[in-house]
Amino acid sequence: MTIAEQMRTLAVAARQASRRMATLSTSTKNQLLVTMATSLETHQQWLQQENNKDLERAGQTGMAAAMVDRLTLTSERIVAMADGLREVAALPDPVGEITGMWLRPNGIQVGRQRIPLGVIGIIYESRPNVTADAAGLCLKSGNAVILRGGSEALASNQAIGKLLQQCLAEQGLPEAALQVVTTSDRNAVTALLTLEEQIDLIIPRGGEGLIRFVAEHSRIPVIKHYKGVCHVYVDGEADLTMAEEICLNAKVQRPGVCNAMETLLVHRDSAAVFVPQIVAAMRQAGVEVRGCDKARQLVADLVPATEEDWYAEYLDLILALRVVDDFDQARDHIEAYGSLHTEVIVTTNYQRSRQFLREINSSVVMVNASSRFSDGNQLGLGAEIGISTTKLHSFGPMGLEDLTTRKFVVLGQGQVRP
Amino acid sequence: MTIAEQMRTLAVAARQASRRMATLSTSTKNQLLVTMATSLETHQQWLQQENNKDLERAGQTGMAAAMVDRLTLTSERIVAMADGLREVAALPDPVGEITGMWLRPNGIQVGRQRIPLGVIGIIYESRPNVTADAAGLCLKSGNAVILRGGSEALASNQAIGKLLQQCLAEQGLPEAALQVVTTSDRNAVTALLTLEEQIDLIIPRGGEGLIRFVAEHSRIPVIKHYKGVCHVYVDGEADLTMAEEICLNAKVQRPGVCNAMETLLVHRDSAAVFVPQIVAAMRQAGVEVRGCDKARQLVADLVPATEEDWYAEYLDLILALRVVDDFDQARDHIEAYGSLHTEVIVTTNYQRSRQFLREINSSVVMVNASSRFSDGNQLGLGAEIGISTTKLHSFGPMGLEDLTTRKFVVLGQGQVRP
Repeated sequence: MTIAEQMRTLAVAARQASRRMATLSTSTKNQLLVTMATSLETHQQWLQQENNKDLERAGQTGMAAAMVDRLTLTSERIVAMADGLREVAALPDPVGEITGMWLRPNGIQVGRQRIPLGVIGIIYESRPNVTADAAGLCLKSGNAVILRGGSEALASNQAIGKLLQQCLAEQGLPEAALQVVTTSDRNAVTALLTLEEQIDLIIPRGGEGLIRFVAEHSRIPVIKHYKGVCHVYVDGEADLTMAEEICLNAKVQRPGVCNAMETLLVHRDSAAVFVPQIVAAMRQAGVEVRGCDKARQLVADLVPATEEDWYAEYLDLILALRVVDDFDQARDHIEAYGSLHTEVIVTTNYQRSRQFLREINSSVVMVNASSRFSDGNQLGLGAEIGISTTKLHSFGPMGLEDLTTRKFVVLGQGQVRP
Repeated sequence: MTIAEQMRTLAVAARQASRRMATLSTSTKNQLLVTMATSLETHQQWLQQENNKDLERAGQTGMAAAMVDRLTLTSERIVAMADGLREVAALPDPVGEITGMWLRPNGIQVGRQRIPLGVIGIIYESRPNVTADAAGLCLKSGNAVILRGGSEALASNQAIGKLLQQCLAEQGLPEAALQVVTTSDRNAVTALLTLEEQIDLIIPRGGEGLIRFVAEHSRIPVIKHYKGVCHVYVDGEADLTMAEEICLNAKVQRPGVCNAMETLLVHRDSAAVFVPQIVAAMRQAGVEVRGCDKARQLVADLVPATEEDWYAEYLDLILALRVVDDFDQARDHIEAYGSLHTEVIVTTNYQRSRQFLREINSSVVMVNASSRFSDGNQLGLGAEIGISTTKLHSFGPMGLEDLTTRKFVVLGQGQVRP
């Protein structure tokens, strides 16, 4: 079989299995996830043996230390995967929920009911814990899942997949509901991306290169975010102590993630006090600040910011800082350079808070809170399968509900159309 | 300027205009639509003059009579377009609606608020009324719209577009919020389909060829349905008088549309009575019935159905008829040959009605009602922009709400992440 034929066979089996998964009761799905959690913990030693195969290969190829760290399945991480599955088991099941039911003049009753999407493909990079995390969310929402992790984690992903499949089989459920692609051939990805009849949604998780590759080659809908260039705007009327706390948290609490602040916009009325204040605080926290001309008039030794800095997702202890004349300039800046991820206003002015929430159409807009809350868990979705910065289907952090769609149900007593 | 550059300029202007449209009050949008309706009626004579240019060209190229009919802007149709705009003006505005607002343990309040998608591209075929209908829905939902109709309706579409644009200008709104592509070059479509930064959604409306072309060439999300192979399943326990009425309505009330029945499945327990009954009724209504072997044992002179008949969307007075052994066989048939559009069960059995609603995951599932109700207006969405038979974003008939998405809004008092 060619790679393309293998992928088709696998996807056809997933489609078949998805029909069964869609009809499972919540308690069956919860039981499955809890059993999976136990299995990961019980087979911890074997998982680490398999993980060692990947780590040995990584050693031979001279993988960077940070990458090796992400690849390593420590005992703690295996327990965390298991706990993650238990947490998803404890979440409410979105499937079957009727989100509305109304009566038409002719007496037919019309409702909308949540159903699983069907088959979801996850294309991801090195971290093997994604295998269990994504599988848990897809199965709980009644879908079948095809997992294609990075080739550097092949043995680890296969091992996790094998354990989870055994749990499916033990409960009399189709193993094809969860399949790990076991070839490291990149053609497997391109082949999967053409199977629009079998796969309903592709979620790529990883660097911008991977995501662009998937988006460009896919015939299947893709939910994605390329980057997070998140802004904090400190208004002309603001509690500057609060502003400092929010900015520091947004920048340094975990700088390497997509909801960290990358650009700080300061209204000129706050600039004389706040720019020196925040630059000092950021420097103390080890952050390099790059400023516009007006900011550099206030703090002489700032690194000058260039046009590229406004587009940059540093994912590092670097901050771009711009002084703006008014609200409109802040909004225009966010529209021109932003990535539709998360934007924050710090203000004490009611009017302006409303205007920001109304006029900024990024996926998450906040008043007086750290951008670091832009996360499925923090926002209360229970768990996160990904973040979307395109507006179709989902916009922002995605939870279980985003892995479902709604069908119309109609209850009649013989009505026909006149 | 090349065609590609023209399309980019147009789309950049649309994106710019969409920012303004997103912030309009409901009353401004309603006023706009009502003004547009009046303008169409006031300029009826001019519209018909422009329409005559298309009709003359159609005459020269020997267009089929049915096509010429669809192209013609009668006085009645112009009034219908205007009324359509007034009806959309009267619908509730989905934009700004908060669909949930909850409190997190740390005191931040999290909500989801409806916002417009941004810029919507409509690619459609001959009927010029789509220009006004689609524009009304897109503008009411706060979006900008790019309309690309068939080249055979170019003069008519341009005329309608011009009137509607004047209404925008008169109210001080950006004309670029509504643009009609004025070239008949097909490269304009392929160029539009690559502008993923400027256009948020493409909705193709027309034949399967157009829709496949758009789906294959688009880098922008597409909402589409290829065809409607709708099934009615008459259960073993059913009111056969009701079943006959529903089947007749579903097949002959308007056979040329996507929610008409194409295949009738009859449980064997009902077959001996119902097959002869429905074949007689269908024949009296001018319908050719093509049957499976079991059906032909009951009505000897039935045309034999072939494998292709089960896949067929006849859009005509032809019906495929199959006798099934049980519920599972009906479900498997629908899964194998269906198009996820609309399926109906006729039954008196409570259990089976529930099973059908649960196990059939087409976009509309009905009990004891005609498939002809599968339509945005009939289901109570107020108006219909299209139908989706893919599950992402929308599934089934789409109304105003489907032209919006939701962003997260977060209200804090200085919270940071620990």
